[in-house]
Amino acid sequence: MSDTHPVRLNAQVRIVGTGLLGASIGLALRSQGVDVVLADSSPSSVRLAADLGAGRPASATDVPQVIVVCVPPDVTSDVIEAELRAYPSAVVTDVASVKLAPLNQLRERGVDITRYIGSHPLAGRERGGAISARGDLFIGRPWVVCRVEETPPWALALVEDLALDVGAVPIEMTPQAHDQAVGLVSHVPQIVSSLMAKQLEGASDDAVRLAGQGVRDVTRIAASSPELWIQILGANKDSIVGVLENLQKDLQNVTDALRDVDAPGARTIIAEEMSAGNAGVARLPGKHGQNRRFAQIVVLVDDRPGQLAQLLTELGELNINVEDLRLEHAEGAQMGMVEFSVIPEVRDSLLKDLEKRNWRVA
Amino acid sequence: MSDTHPVRLNAQVRIVGTGLLGASIGLALRSQGVDVVLADSSPSSVRLAADLGAGRPASATDVPQVIVVCVPPDVTSDVIEAELRAYPSAVVTDVASVKLAPLNQLRERGVDITRYIGSHPLAGRERGGAISARGDLFIGRPWVVCRVEETPPWALALVEDLALDVGAVPIEMTPQAHDQAVGLVSHVPQIVSSLMAKQLEGASDDAVRLAGQGVRDVTRIAASSPELWIQILGANKDSIVGVLENLQKDLQNVTDALRDVDAPGARTIIAEEMSAGNAGVARLPGKHGQNRRFAQIVVLVDDRPGQLAQLLTELGELNINVEDLRLEHAEGAQMGMVEFSVIPEVRDSLLKDLEKRNWRVA
Repeated sequence: MSDTHPVRLNAQVRIVGTGLLGASIGLALRSQGVDVVLADSSPSSVRLAADLGAGRPASATDVPQVIVVCVPPDVTSDVIEAELRAYPSAVVTDVASVKLAPLNQLRERGVDITRYIGSHPLAGRERGGAISARGDLFIGRPWVVCRVEETPPWALALVEDLALDVGAVPIEMTPQAHDQAVGLVSHVPQIVSSLMAKQLEGASDDAVRLAGQGVRDVTRIAASSPELWIQILGANKDSIVGVLENLQKDLQNVTDALRDVDAPGARTIIAEEMSAGNAGVARLPGKHGQNRRFAQIVVLVDDRPGQLAQLLTELGELNINVEDLRLEHAEGAQMGMVEFSVIPEVRDSLLKDLEKRNWRVA
Repeated sequence: MSDTHPVRLNAQVRIVGTGLLGASIGLALRSQGVDVVLADSSPSSVRLAADLGAGRPASATDVPQVIVVCVPPDVTSDVIEAELRAYPSAVVTDVASVKLAPLNQLRERGVDITRYIGSHPLAGRERGGAISARGDLFIGRPWVVCRVEETPPWALALVEDLALDVGAVPIEMTPQAHDQAVGLVSHVPQIVSSLMAKQLEGASDDAVRLAGQGVRDVTRIAASSPELWIQILGANKDSIVGVLENLQKDLQNVTDALRDVDAPGARTIIAEEMSAGNAGVARLPGKHGQNRRFAQIVVLVDDRPGQLAQLLTELGELNINVEDLRLEHAEGAQMGMVEFSVIPEVRDSLLKDLEKRNWRVA
């Protein structure tokens, strides 16, 4: 899809806010030859992004066709309004991770939103700032575009072209549907992960020694920045609070059932909650946006240079494309487990081939 | 440690229960030349484990020195008691993931526990049964050994030797400390993951399309078996309920603060909860049991056979040992991101070398 798309944004793009997302959009557009001008409340941030190749500093003679607002959530609607006024022929979009709140704020102030279309690229990194920017940040990622009744088709097309030009996959959603979706699949999981991690704060040294991959996975995103997340959670509270209330009820059910686990029906309650969890996790799509199931293979390798390369070279010789490879080290041992997926059709013959080649297959 | 350890278990080991753990222990001990005899309530399960190489079927002439009970949690104490009676000179251990409940049950029945030492190898797989058994399952994993006042040093040494012989790292803990530790770092994260996943059960197709790595990680272990977990959670409820109550209070705090997010202090409450999550996740140790930080490197590769192998071959040429490698596919695009860690000292020169070799480094 994106690889057959021509560069359509042959006009100027203005990026307001040159942090991670703004600078990454600039890098991606510049690599497509798009003219990008950069603005930020911090002149040194603009200089850094320009030095990194994300575009050139904005000037009074700019005539942008598209403006991308990439500022913190709590000032997004103010900046959108200012940009719509300053550039009366440009289409303005933003990349904030909540879409209904800025739209409602603009409507309440009576701003004409014909030329505003909210959008949200589902991409990010653990670290922020232009210094962490990557031109490939959006490749293959969903980029939600929220048209409203007022949106004319030509304006929508411009924002979708922007998404395509940076390598993303545009998805049209209403602002309400977007906010509910990210509330459920992003914002609530963030709260859950943070609160689980909080319980580890006072853990004994012995307890953390026993931590395995499960708790590591559950708490990985708990390392996220509280400052940014307060803004996101606050702006999307209407979508989040209901899910949190359901979660609280479920947690209360399990806690009550466990407290008196031999009471009639107690174990059934816990089993039902966990079975629903089985069903819920099965809803998440597979790789490449497909629901196709891959076959898992595990190979034991020594933890030294060249072992994994040797394995992958041999997989290449066997013409096997590996999916979703993961190297895990065994704690305290100089060994590694290479876990990867292959299409189910090749699994059995691959296992035989690997054993013939003396790989230790689990 | 384990690689300089001689085979000390030169006597017979009896394994009762030939599921995943029992058969894996058998495979590991057999590879060390230990004489292993197998028993299970299902004769066909014993035959399967024996055919796989985990040992030979038990017979009336066996004289085991160590007995390892690997049966489901709800029958563990019954089987321990029967084995202590049947083999009056053997040391009996078990591998159940909860340690206080079986011990208390044995004490309540007046069983002499001089020859019983509970243990718990922190190892497992998603799939159960002898058919999934692996002789390398315990390599480098912690194996908790719970001595009590009654335990003589020679009996403790036998169980620790068993752990060393299968490649595990023995850790002495009291049953109470063990149960609290696994409650916190294993059992409560399981409940949290399952209940978060439950909320996804009724999600819209659009919502699950927006799911990223965060929610996938938080909910990965929600695919676990409810049947097994009810037994584990029920047996360790005393260690779990308190943590769940704290979690409920934190969830209530955040939900209340979000519901009225503009009230004085509301945002501070959310920030404090999330900051505590930052501190909690930082408690989890790094790889190889060290707290050493590795430098992250991300390389963009085409999603076709041989690309990853080529990268790793070149890393081998550069004498770079990669840690914790992960290949992620970009949704909807035939591209992959290879993320891996290296020791910080080599990071800068490696980035230059990779760019010289025309790799797209993020």
